[in-house]
Amino acid sequence: MSANPTAALLIIGNEVLSGRTRDANLQFLATELGALGIPVREVRVIPDIEATIVGTVNELRAKFTHVFTTGGIGPTHDDITSECIAKAFGVPWEVHPVAHARMAAYYASQNPPTEFNAARLRMATMPRGCVLIENEATVAPGFSMENVHVMAGVPRIMQAMFRALAPKLERGQPVVSATVHADGVFEGQIADPLAAVQARFPALDVGSYPYFRPGPVRGGVALVAKGTDAADVAAAADQIEALLLAVGGKPVRGEPKLDDNTTKG
Amino acid sequence: MSANPTAALLIIGNEVLSGRTRDANLQFLATELGALGIPVREVRVIPDIEATIVGTVNELRAKFTHVFTTGGIGPTHDDITSECIAKAFGVPWEVHPVAHARMAAYYASQNPPTEFNAARLRMATMPRGCVLIENEATVAPGFSMENVHVMAGVPRIMQAMFRALAPKLERGQPVVSATVHADGVFEGQIADPLAAVQARFPALDVGSYPYFRPGPVRGGVALVAKGTDAADVAAAADQIEALLLAVGGKPVRGEPKLDDNTTKG
Repeated sequence: MSANPTAALLIIGNEVLSGRTRDANLQFLATELGALGIPVREVRVIPDIEATIVGTVNELRAKFTHVFTTGGIGPTHDDITSECIAKAFGVPWEVHPVAHARMAAYYASQNPPTEFNAARLRMATMPRGCVLIENEATVAPGFSMENVHVMAGVPRIMQAMFRALAPKLERGQPVVSATVHADGVFEGQIADPLAAVQARFPALDVGSYPYFRPGPVRGGVALVAKGTDAADVAAAADQIEALLLAVGGKPVRGEPKLDDNTTKG
Repeated sequence: MSANPTAALLIIGNEVLSGRTRDANLQFLATELGALGIPVREVRVIPDIEATIVGTVNELRAKFTHVFTTGGIGPTHDDITSECIAKAFGVPWEVHPVAHARMAAYYASQNPPTEFNAARLRMATMPRGCVLIENEATVAPGFSMENVHVMAGVPRIMQAMFRALAPKLERGQPVVSATVHADGVFEGQIADPLAAVQARFPALDVGSYPYFRPGPVRGGVALVAKGTDAADVAAAADQIEALLLAVGGKPVRGEPKLDDNTTKG
Protein backbone atom coordinates (compact mmCIF):
# COMPACT_ATOMS: atom_id res chain seq x y z
CA MET A 1 0.00 0.00 0.00
CA SER A 2 3.04 2.27 0.09
CA ALA A 3 2.15 3.77 -3.27
CA ASN A 4 -1.29 4.84 -2.11
CA PRO A 5 -2.00 8.44 -1.16
CA THR A 6 -2.60 8.94 2.57
CA ALA A 7 -5.01 11.03 4.61
CA ALA A 8 -5.17 12.62 8.02
CA LEU A 9 -8.37 13.89 9.60
CA LEU A 10 -8.36 16.98 11.79
CA ILE A 11 -11.51 17.35 13.86
CA ILE A 12 -11.65 20.89 15.23
CA GLY A 13 -13.95 21.72 18.10
CA ASN A 14 -14.17 22.11 21.87
CA GLU A 15 -17.54 20.31 21.83
CA VAL A 16 -15.96 17.00 20.80
CA LEU A 17 -13.13 17.30 23.37
CA SER A 18 -15.62 18.07 26.16
CA GLY A 19 -17.79 15.06 25.35
CA ARG A 20 -20.82 17.25 24.53
CA THR A 21 -20.90 16.05 20.93
CA ARG A 22 -20.12 12.53 19.77
CA ASP A 23 -18.15 12.81 16.56
CA ALA A 24 -19.85 11.19 13.59
CA ASN A 25 -17.42 12.26 10.90
CA LEU A 26 -14.40 10.04 11.59
CA GLN A 27 -16.12 6.79 10.71
CA PHE A 28 -17.79 8.24 7.60
CA LEU A 29 -14.59 9.73 6.22
CA ALA A 30 -12.43 6.72 7.14
CA THR A 31 -14.80 4.40 5.28
CA GLU A 32 -15.24 6.62 2.23
CA LEU A 33 -11.55 7.44 1.91
CA GLY A 34 -10.56 3.78 2.30
CA ALA A 35 -12.85 2.91 -0.60
CA LEU A 36 -11.11 5.60 -2.69
CA GLY A 37 -7.71 4.12 -1.90
CA ILE A 38 -6.76 7.08 0.30
CA PRO A 39 -6.49 5.35 3.70
CA VAL A 40 -6.70 7.46 6.85
CA ARG A 41 -3.43 7.14 8.76
CA GLU A 42 -4.04 9.52 11.66
CA VAL A 43 -6.86 11.46 13.28
CA ARG A 44 -6.53 14.37 15.66
CA VAL A 45 -9.17 16.18 17.66
CA ILE A 46 -8.07 19.64 18.77
CA PRO A 47 -9.67 22.69 20.41
CA ASP A 48 -10.66 26.02 18.86
CA ILE A 49 -7.27 27.59 19.65
CA GLU A 50 -5.44 29.43 16.88
CA ALA A 51 -1.87 28.33 17.63
CA THR A 52 -2.96 24.71 17.96
CA ILE A 53 -4.90 24.72 14.68
CA VAL A 54 -2.13 26.47 12.71
CA GLY A 55 0.61 24.22 14.09
CA THR A 56 -1.34 21.01 13.60
CA VAL A 57 -2.38 21.87 10.04
CA ASN A 58 1.22 22.59 9.09
CA GLU A 59 2.48 19.39 10.70
CA LEU A 60 -0.14 17.18 9.06
CA ARG A 61 -0.09 18.73 5.58
CA ALA A 62 3.66 18.07 5.38
CA LYS A 63 3.25 14.46 6.50
CA PHE A 64 0.21 13.18 4.56
CA THR A 65 -1.01 13.44 0.98
CA HIS A 66 -4.31 14.99 2.13
CA VAL A 67 -5.64 16.62 5.29
CA PHE A 68 -9.41 16.79 5.80
CA THR A 69 -10.66 19.17 8.48
CA THR A 70 -14.14 19.28 9.99
CA GLY A 71 -15.63 22.02 12.12
CA GLY A 72 -15.13 25.69 12.82
CA ILE A 73 -16.29 27.30 9.56
CA GLY A 74 -19.58 28.80 10.76
CA PRO A 75 -20.30 32.47 11.52
CA THR A 76 -19.63 32.65 15.28
CA HIS A 77 -16.57 33.84 17.21
CA ASP A 78 -15.43 30.25 17.91
CA ASP A 79 -15.37 29.42 14.19
CA ILE A 80 -11.73 30.21 13.46
CA THR A 81 -10.67 27.36 11.18
CA SER A 82 -10.73 29.39 7.95
CA GLU A 83 -8.50 32.22 9.17
CA CYS A 84 -6.16 29.68 10.79
CA ILE A 85 -5.73 27.92 7.43
CA ALA A 86 -4.75 31.27 5.88
CA LYS A 87 -2.18 31.77 8.67
CA ALA A 88 -0.86 28.22 8.23
CA PHE A 89 -0.25 28.91 4.52
CA GLY A 90 0.97 32.48 5.07
CA VAL A 91 -1.61 33.99 2.69
CA PRO A 92 -4.19 36.77 3.17
CA TRP A 93 -7.65 35.90 4.50
CA GLU A 94 -10.01 37.82 2.25
CA VAL A 95 -13.51 37.89 0.81
CA HIS A 96 -13.85 35.26 -1.94
CA PRO A 97 -15.75 36.93 -4.80
CA VAL A 98 -17.61 33.82 -6.00
CA ALA A 99 -18.62 32.71 -2.51
CA HIS A 100 -19.66 36.29 -1.73
CA ALA A 101 -21.78 36.62 -4.86
CA ARG A 102 -23.58 33.32 -4.26
CA MET A 103 -24.27 34.06 -0.62
CA ALA A 104 -25.43 37.61 -1.37
CA ALA A 105 -27.89 36.31 -3.97
CA TYR A 106 -29.13 33.64 -1.60
CA TYR A 107 -29.69 35.95 1.36
CA ALA A 108 -31.44 38.50 -0.88
CA SER A 109 -33.75 35.78 -2.21
CA GLN A 110 -35.05 34.83 1.23
CA ASN A 111 -38.47 36.08 2.26
CA PRO A 112 -37.98 38.29 4.19
CA PRO A 113 -34.43 38.90 2.92
CA THR A 114 -31.70 37.79 5.35
CA GLU A 115 -29.18 40.42 6.32
CA PHE A 116 -25.70 39.67 4.91
CA ASN A 117 -24.12 40.89 8.14
CA ALA A 118 -20.54 40.80 9.38
CA ALA A 119 -20.95 37.36 10.94
CA ARG A 120 -22.25 35.83 7.71
CA LEU A 121 -19.55 37.65 5.74
CA ARG A 122 -16.98 35.64 7.71
CA MET A 123 -18.28 32.52 5.91
CA ALA A 124 -17.40 34.13 2.54
CA THR A 125 -13.90 35.06 3.75
CA MET A 126 -11.20 32.55 2.84
CA PRO A 127 -7.49 32.04 2.29
CA ARG A 128 -6.30 33.60 -0.99
CA GLY A 129 -5.83 30.90 -3.62
CA CYS A 130 -8.31 28.38 -2.24
CA VAL A 131 -10.72 26.35 -4.39
CA LEU A 132 -14.37 26.33 -3.27
CA ILE A 133 -16.17 23.13 -2.25
CA GLU A 134 -19.69 24.03 -3.32
CA ASN A 135 -22.35 21.59 -2.22
CA GLU A 136 -26.05 20.87 -2.09
CA ALA A 137 -26.52 21.26 1.64
CA THR A 138 -25.56 24.87 2.25
CA VAL A 139 -24.85 28.09 0.38
CA ALA A 140 -21.70 28.64 2.49
CA PRO A 141 -19.00 26.58 0.80
CA GLY A 142 -16.05 24.66 2.16
CA PHE A 143 -12.72 25.01 0.40
CA SER A 144 -9.49 23.25 -0.50
CA MET A 145 -6.17 25.00 0.07
CA GLU A 146 -3.58 22.86 -1.73
CA ASN A 147 -3.86 19.48 0.04
CA VAL A 148 -5.98 20.73 2.97
CA HIS A 149 -9.73 20.27 2.54
CA VAL A 150 -11.84 22.37 4.90
CA MET A 151 -15.35 21.13 5.62
CA ALA A 152 -18.22 21.80 8.02
CA GLY A 153 -18.61 19.90 11.28
CA VAL A 154 -22.35 19.21 10.91
CA PRO A 155 -22.39 15.65 9.51
CA ARG A 156 -25.10 16.26 6.89
CA ILE A 157 -23.23 19.28 5.51
CA MET A 158 -19.80 17.63 5.78
CA GLN A 159 -21.08 14.66 3.80
CA ALA A 160 -22.45 16.90 1.04
CA MET A 161 -19.10 18.70 0.88
CA PHE A 162 -17.24 15.40 0.71
CA ARG A 163 -19.48 14.14 -2.10
CA ALA A 164 -18.64 17.32 -4.06
CA LEU A 165 -14.93 16.99 -3.32
CA ALA A 166 -14.40 13.24 -3.77
CA PRO A 167 -14.48 13.11 -7.61
CA LYS A 168 -11.60 15.60 -7.70
CA LEU A 169 -9.28 13.50 -5.54
CA GLU A 170 -6.73 11.25 -7.20
CA ARG A 171 -7.54 7.71 -6.12
CA GLY A 172 -5.23 4.96 -4.99
CA GLN A 173 -5.78 1.23 -5.03
CA PRO A 174 -9.00 0.62 -3.08
CA VAL A 175 -8.49 -1.01 0.30
CA VAL A 176 -10.50 -4.23 0.46
CA SER A 177 -11.08 -6.42 3.47
CA ALA A 178 -12.43 -9.83 4.42
CA THR A 179 -13.77 -10.72 7.85
CA VAL A 180 -14.32 -14.17 9.36
CA HIS A 181 -15.85 -14.51 12.82
CA ALA A 182 -16.52 -17.42 15.16
CA ASP A 183 -18.62 -17.50 18.31
CA GLY A 184 -16.99 -19.07 21.37
CA VAL A 185 -13.41 -18.66 20.16
CA PHE A 186 -11.09 -16.52 22.28
CA GLU A 187 -8.13 -14.51 21.04
CA GLY A 188 -5.74 -16.43 23.31
CA GLN A 189 -6.49 -19.62 21.35
CA ILE A 190 -5.66 -18.33 17.90
CA ALA A 191 -2.95 -15.73 18.48
CA ASP A 192 -0.05 -17.87 17.24
CA PRO A 193 -1.58 -19.18 13.98
CA LEU A 194 -2.99 -15.70 13.30
CA ALA A 195 0.47 -14.17 13.68
CA ALA A 196 1.66 -16.75 11.13
CA VAL A 197 -0.98 -15.52 8.66
CA GLN A 198 0.22 -11.94 9.17
CA ALA A 199 3.81 -13.10 8.61
CA ARG A 200 2.85 -14.82 5.33
CA PHE A 201 1.11 -11.65 4.06
CA PRO A 202 3.28 -8.77 5.26
CA ALA A 203 1.58 -6.29 2.92
CA LEU A 204 -1.81 -6.92 4.55
CA ASP A 205 -3.13 -5.71 7.90
CA VAL A 206 -4.37 -8.74 9.82
CA GLY A 207 -6.40 -7.78 12.89
CA SER A 208 -8.20 -9.56 15.70
CA TYR A 209 -11.26 -8.06 17.40
CA PRO A 210 -13.12 -9.77 20.22
CA TYR A 211 -16.85 -9.19 20.52
CA PHE A 212 -19.27 -9.63 23.37
CA ARG A 213 -22.97 -10.26 23.68
CA PRO A 214 -25.37 -11.46 26.33
CA GLY A 215 -26.22 -15.16 26.46
CA PRO A 216 -24.56 -18.50 27.11
CA VAL A 217 -21.95 -18.03 24.37
CA ARG A 218 -20.73 -14.63 25.46
CA GLY A 219 -19.04 -13.66 22.25
CA GLY A 220 -16.19 -14.63 20.03
CA VAL A 221 -13.59 -13.16 17.78
CA ALA A 222 -13.70 -11.40 14.42
CA LEU A 223 -10.54 -11.70 12.31
CA VAL A 224 -9.94 -9.20 9.53
CA ALA A 225 -7.52 -9.20 6.59
CA LYS A 226 -7.22 -5.87 4.81
CA GLY A 227 -5.12 -4.49 1.99
CA THR A 228 -5.00 -3.42 -1.63
CA ASP A 229 -4.29 -6.87 -3.15
CA ALA A 230 -7.66 -8.60 -3.38
CA ALA A 231 -6.16 -12.01 -4.17
CA ASP A 232 -3.94 -11.85 -1.08
CA VAL A 233 -6.92 -10.78 1.03
CA ALA A 234 -8.95 -13.76 -0.23
CA ALA A 235 -6.07 -16.19 0.40
CA ALA A 236 -5.52 -14.83 3.91
CA ALA A 237 -9.25 -15.18 4.65
CA ASP A 238 -9.09 -18.85 3.64
CA GLN A 239 -6.19 -19.40 6.04
CA ILE A 240 -8.07 -17.58 8.79
CA GLU A 241 -11.10 -19.78 8.25
CA ALA A 242 -8.87 -22.86 8.50
CA LEU A 243 -7.26 -21.76 11.77
CA LEU A 244 -10.67 -21.12 13.33
CA LEU A 245 -11.78 -24.62 12.27
CA ALA A 246 -8.58 -26.06 13.76
CA VAL A 247 -9.52 -24.85 17.27
CA GLY A 248 -13.06 -26.23 16.98
CA GLY A 249 -14.73 -22.97 15.93
CA LYS A 250 -17.50 -22.60 13.38
CA PRO A 251 -16.22 -19.79 11.19
CA VAL A 252 -18.69 -17.51 9.42
CA ARG A 253 -17.73 -15.00 6.73
CA GLY A 254 -18.51 -11.39 7.54
CA GLU A 255 -18.92 -9.36 10.71
CA PRO A 256 -20.93 -10.78 13.62
CA LYS A 257 -24.39 -9.30 14.16
CA LEU A 258 -24.27 -7.33 17.37
CA ASP A 259 -26.27 -4.79 19.28
CA ASP A 260 -23.32 -2.82 20.56
CA ASN A 261 -19.94 -1.89 19.22
CA THR A 262 -17.17 -4.38 18.99
CA THR A 263 -13.80 -2.97 19.73
CA LYS A 264 -10.38 -4.46 19.76
CA GLY A 265 -9.24 -5.60 23.21
CA MET B 1 -8.70 26.72 34.02
CA SER B 2 -4.95 27.08 33.60
CA ALA B 3 -4.30 25.52 37.01
CA ASN B 4 -6.20 22.36 36.12
CA PRO B 5 -4.38 19.19 35.13
CA THR B 6 -4.81 18.30 31.46
CA ALA B 7 -5.37 15.08 29.55
CA ALA B 8 -4.70 13.68 26.11
CA LEU B 9 -6.37 10.54 24.75
CA LEU B 10 -4.48 8.19 22.48
CA ILE B 11 -6.74 5.74 20.66
CA ILE B 12 -4.59 2.97 19.19
CA GLY B 13 -5.97 0.72 16.50
CA ASN B 14 -6.20 0.18 12.76
CA GLU B 15 -9.88 -0.73 13.14
CA VAL B 16 -10.85 2.82 14.13
CA LEU B 17 -8.77 4.39 11.34
CA SER B 18 -10.32 2.08 8.74
CA GLY B 19 -13.87 2.89 9.83
CA ARG B 20 -14.58 -0.72 10.83
CA THR B 21 -15.15 0.23 14.46
CA ARG B 22 -16.83 3.40 15.65
CA ASP B 23 -14.91 4.61 18.66
CA ALA B 24 -17.00 4.78 21.82
CA ASN B 25 -14.25 5.69 24.26
CA LEU B 26 -13.57 9.33 23.39
CA GLN B 27 -16.95 10.64 24.53
CA PHE B 28 -16.95 8.55 27.71
CA LEU B 29 -13.46 9.60 28.78
CA ALA B 30 -13.96 13.25 27.78
CA THR B 31 -17.11 13.47 29.89
CA GLU B 32 -15.69 11.62 32.90
CA LEU B 33 -12.39 13.48 32.87
CA GLY B 34 -14.12 16.84 32.53
CA ALA B 35 -16.16 16.05 35.65
CA LEU B 36 -12.90 15.27 37.49
CA GLY B 37 -11.44 18.63 36.47
CA ILE B 38 -8.95 16.98 34.10
CA PRO B 39 -10.18 18.34 30.76
CA VAL B 40 -9.19 16.54 27.57
CA ARG B 41 -7.13 18.90 25.39
CA GLU B 42 -6.24 16.63 22.48
CA VAL B 43 -7.18 13.25 21.04
CA ARG B 44 -5.18 11.23 18.55
CA VAL B 45 -6.11 8.06 16.71
CA ILE B 46 -3.08 6.17 15.41
CA PRO B 47 -2.36 2.79 13.81
CA ASP B 48 -0.73 -0.30 15.34
CA ILE B 49 2.76 0.76 14.22
CA GLU B 50 5.56 0.71 16.76
CA ALA B 51 7.42 3.88 15.76
CA THR B 52 4.17 5.84 15.64
CA ILE B 53 3.02 4.64 19.06
CA VAL B 54 6.40 5.25 20.73
CA GLY B 55 6.81 8.70 19.21
CA THR B 56 3.26 9.81 19.96
CA VAL B 57 3.37 8.59 23.57
CA ASN B 58 6.59 10.48 24.18
CA GLU B 59 5.24 13.65 22.58
CA LEU B 60 1.96 13.60 24.50
CA ARG B 61 3.33 12.60 27.92
CA ALA B 62 5.69 15.60 27.83
CA LYS B 63 2.88 17.97 26.86
CA PHE B 64 -0.06 16.95 29.08
CA THR B 65 -0.49 16.04 32.75
CA HIS B 66 -2.00 12.68 31.83
CA VAL B 67 -2.16 10.47 28.74
CA PHE B 68 -4.88 7.82 28.54
CA THR B 69 -4.44 5.13 25.90
CA THR B 70 -7.08 2.68 24.68
CA GLY B 71 -6.52 -0.43 22.59
CA GLY B 72 -3.76 -2.85 21.74
CA ILE B 73 -3.28 -4.72 25.04
CA GLY B 74 -4.81 -8.08 24.07
CA PRO B 75 -2.95 -11.31 23.24
CA THR B 76 -2.67 -11.11 19.43
CA HIS B 77 0.23 -10.01 17.23
CA ASP B 78 -1.35 -6.61 16.54
CA ASP B 79 -1.56 -5.82 20.28
CA ILE B 80 1.73 -3.97 20.67
CA THR B 81 0.79 -1.06 22.94
CA SER B 82 2.37 -2.50 26.10
CA GLU B 83 5.80 -3.17 24.60
CA CYS B 84 5.71 0.23 22.88
CA ILE B 85 5.14 1.93 26.24
CA ALA B 86 8.22 0.15 27.61
CA LYS B 87 10.23 1.38 24.60
CA ALA B 88 8.88 4.92 25.05
CA PHE B 89 10.10 4.95 28.66
CA GLY B 90 13.33 3.06 27.91
CA VAL B 91 12.63 0.30 30.44
CA PRO B 92 12.53 -3.51 30.06
CA TRP B 93 9.28 -5.20 29.07
CA GLU B 94 9.01 -8.15 31.44
CA VAL B 95 6.56 -10.48 33.17
CA HIS B 96 4.79 -8.67 36.01
CA PRO B 97 4.74 -11.09 38.97
CA VAL B 98 1.41 -9.98 40.42
CA ALA B 99 -0.38 -9.94 37.06
CA HIS B 100 1.17 -13.31 36.24
CA ALA B 101 0.07 -14.89 39.54
CA ARG B 102 -3.50 -13.65 39.21
CA MET B 103 -3.83 -14.76 35.61
CA ALA B 104 -2.26 -18.17 36.33
CA ALA B 105 -4.73 -18.76 39.17
CA TYR B 106 -7.64 -17.67 37.01
CA TYR B 107 -6.75 -19.84 34.01
CA ALA B 108 -6.17 -22.86 36.30
CA SER B 109 -9.59 -22.33 37.91
CA GLN B 110 -11.47 -22.58 34.61
CA ASN B 111 -13.27 -25.84 33.83
CA PRO B 112 -11.59 -27.21 31.80
CA PRO B 113 -8.44 -25.25 32.75
CA THR B 114 -7.36 -22.69 30.16
CA GLU B 115 -3.81 -23.00 28.89
CA PHE B 116 -1.61 -20.07 30.02
CA ASN B 117 0.10 -20.02 26.64
CA ALA B 118 2.60 -17.60 25.10
CA ALA B 119 -0.14 -15.36 23.70
CA ARG B 120 -1.85 -14.99 27.08
CA LEU B 121 1.53 -14.48 28.75
CA ARG B 122 1.91 -11.33 26.65
CA MET B 123 -0.96 -9.82 28.65
CA ALA B 124 1.06 -10.33 31.88
CA THR B 125 4.16 -8.72 30.35
CA MET B 126 4.56 -5.03 31.11
CA PRO B 127 7.02 -2.16 31.37
CA ARG B 128 9.21 -2.43 34.49
CA GLY B 129 7.98 -0.04 37.17
CA CYS B 130 4.35 0.16 36.08
CA VAL B 131 1.38 0.14 38.48
CA LEU B 132 -1.44 -2.30 37.67
CA ILE B 133 -4.98 -1.16 36.91
CA GLU B 134 -6.91 -4.14 38.23
CA ASN B 135 -10.59 -4.14 37.43
CA GLU B 136 -13.84 -6.07 37.63
CA ALA B 137 -14.23 -6.78 33.94
CA THR B 138 -11.15 -8.86 33.14
CA VAL B 139 -8.31 -10.71 34.84
CA ALA B 140 -5.79 -9.11 32.47
CA PRO B 141 -5.03 -5.70 34.00
CA GLY B 142 -4.25 -2.35 32.48
CA PHE B 143 -1.40 -0.33 33.94
CA SER B 144 -0.10 3.15 34.62
CA MET B 145 3.48 4.03 33.72
CA GLU B 146 4.12 7.42 35.37
CA ASN B 147 1.50 9.70 33.73
CA VAL B 148 0.53 7.27 30.95
CA HIS B 149 -2.53 5.11 31.70
CA VAL B 150 -2.88 2.08 29.46
CA MET B 151 -6.37 0.63 29.07
CA ALA B 152 -8.25 -1.85 26.89
CA GLY B 153 -10.09 -0.82 23.74
CA VAL B 154 -13.28 -2.77 24.44
CA PRO B 155 -15.57 -0.11 25.94
CA ARG B 156 -16.94 -2.28 28.76
CA ILE B 157 -13.43 -3.24 29.89
CA MET B 158 -12.01 0.25 29.39
CA GLN B 159 -14.80 1.68 31.56
CA ALA B 160 -14.07 -0.82 34.35
CA MET B 161 -10.38 0.08 34.18
CA PHE B 162 -11.19 3.79 34.30
CA ARG B 163 -13.46 3.32 37.33
CA ALA B 164 -10.56 1.59 39.09
CA LEU B 165 -8.08 4.28 38.07
CA ALA B 166 -10.15 7.44 38.59
CA PRO B 167 -9.97 7.59 42.42
CA LYS B 168 -6.16 7.67 42.20
CA LEU B 169 -6.03 10.71 39.91
CA GLU B 170 -5.51 14.14 41.44
CA ARG B 171 -8.56 16.19 40.55
CA GLY B 172 -8.79 19.74 39.32
CA GLN B 173 -11.69 22.15 39.51
CA PRO B 174 -14.64 20.39 37.85
CA VAL B 175 -15.63 21.83 34.50
CA VAL B 176 -19.28 22.89 34.60
CA SER B 177 -21.42 24.03 31.69
CA ALA B 178 -24.77 25.65 30.99
CA THR B 179 -26.65 25.32 27.71
CA VAL B 180 -29.47 27.48 26.35
CA HIS B 181 -31.12 26.60 23.05
CA ALA B 182 -33.76 28.25 20.87
CA ASP B 183 -35.61 26.82 17.91
CA GLY B 184 -35.72 28.96 14.77
CA VAL B 185 -32.69 31.07 15.67
CA PHE B 186 -29.71 30.98 13.30
CA GLU B 187 -26.09 31.48 14.23
CA GLY B 188 -25.76 34.40 11.82
CA GLN B 189 -28.28 36.37 13.93
CA ILE B 190 -26.52 36.08 17.26
CA ALA B 191 -22.83 35.92 16.38
CA ASP B 192 -22.01 39.49 17.46
CA PRO B 193 -23.75 39.55 20.86
CA LEU B 194 -22.42 36.04 21.56
CA ALA B 195 -18.87 37.19 20.84
CA ALA B 196 -19.49 39.99 23.35
CA VAL B 197 -20.43 37.40 26.01
CA GLN B 198 -17.20 35.52 25.27
CA ALA B 199 -15.25 38.77 25.59
CA ARG B 200 -16.83 39.53 28.98
CA PHE B 201 -15.91 36.04 30.29
CA PRO B 202 -12.48 35.31 28.82
CA ALA B 203 -11.90 32.39 31.22
CA LEU B 204 -14.98 30.55 29.89
CA ASP B 205 -15.43 28.68 26.63
CA VAL B 206 -18.53 30.05 24.92
CA GLY B 207 -19.64 27.88 22.00
CA SER B 208 -22.40 27.93 19.39
CA TYR B 209 -23.79 24.71 17.90
CA PRO B 210 -26.55 24.64 15.29
CA TYR B 211 -28.95 21.74 15.29
CA PHE B 212 -31.26 20.36 12.66
CA ARG B 213 -34.45 18.37 12.67
CA PRO B 214 -37.24 17.59 10.26
CA GLY B 215 -40.34 19.74 10.33
CA PRO B 216 -41.41 23.32 9.66
CA VAL B 217 -38.93 24.80 12.15
CA ARG B 218 -35.85 23.06 10.85
CA GLY B 219 -33.69 23.56 13.88
CA GLY B 220 -32.04 26.23 15.89
CA VAL B 221 -28.95 26.96 17.88
CA ALA B 222 -27.59 25.67 21.18
CA LEU B 223 -25.27 28.06 23.02
CA VAL B 224 -22.93 26.69 25.67
CA ALA B 225 -20.90 28.39 28.40
CA LYS B 226 -18.31 26.17 30.05
CA GLY B 227 -15.60 26.61 32.64
CA THR B 228 -14.49 26.01 36.20
CA ASP B 229 -16.13 29.10 37.75
CA ALA B 230 -19.77 28.14 38.32
CA ALA B 231 -20.86 31.71 39.09
CA ASP B 232 -19.36 32.97 35.83
CA VAL B 233 -21.04 30.14 33.93
CA ALA B 234 -24.41 31.04 35.45
CA ALA B 235 -23.96 34.74 34.68
CA ALA B 236 -22.94 34.00 31.09
CA ALA B 237 -25.98 31.75 30.66
CA ASP B 238 -28.23 34.63 31.77
CA GLN B 239 -26.65 36.91 29.17
CA ILE B 240 -27.06 34.21 26.52
CA GLU B 241 -30.73 33.84 27.37
CA ALA B 242 -31.14 37.61 27.06
CA LEU B 243 -29.48 37.77 23.63
CA LEU B 244 -31.74 34.97 22.33
CA LEU B 245 -34.80 36.87 23.59
CA ALA B 246 -33.50 40.02 21.88
CA VAL B 247 -33.69 38.38 18.43
CA GLY B 248 -37.20 37.06 19.06
CA GLY B 249 -36.17 33.56 20.14
CA LYS B 250 -37.78 31.51 22.88
CA PRO B 251 -34.76 30.35 24.87
CA VAL B 252 -34.94 27.06 26.76
CA ARG B 253 -32.32 25.92 29.27
CA GLY B 254 -30.57 22.68 28.43
CA GLU B 255 -29.79 20.79 25.25
CA PRO B 256 -32.46 20.41 22.55
CA LYS B 257 -34.06 16.98 22.25
CA LEU B 258 -32.94 15.52 18.95
CA ASP B 259 -32.91 12.24 17.12
CA ASP B 260 -29.54 12.74 15.50
CA ASN B 261 -26.27 14.28 16.56
CA THR B 262 -25.82 17.99 16.74
CA THR B 263 -22.46 19.15 15.66
CA LYS B 264 -20.91 22.54 15.39
CA GLY B 265 -21.08 24.04 11.89
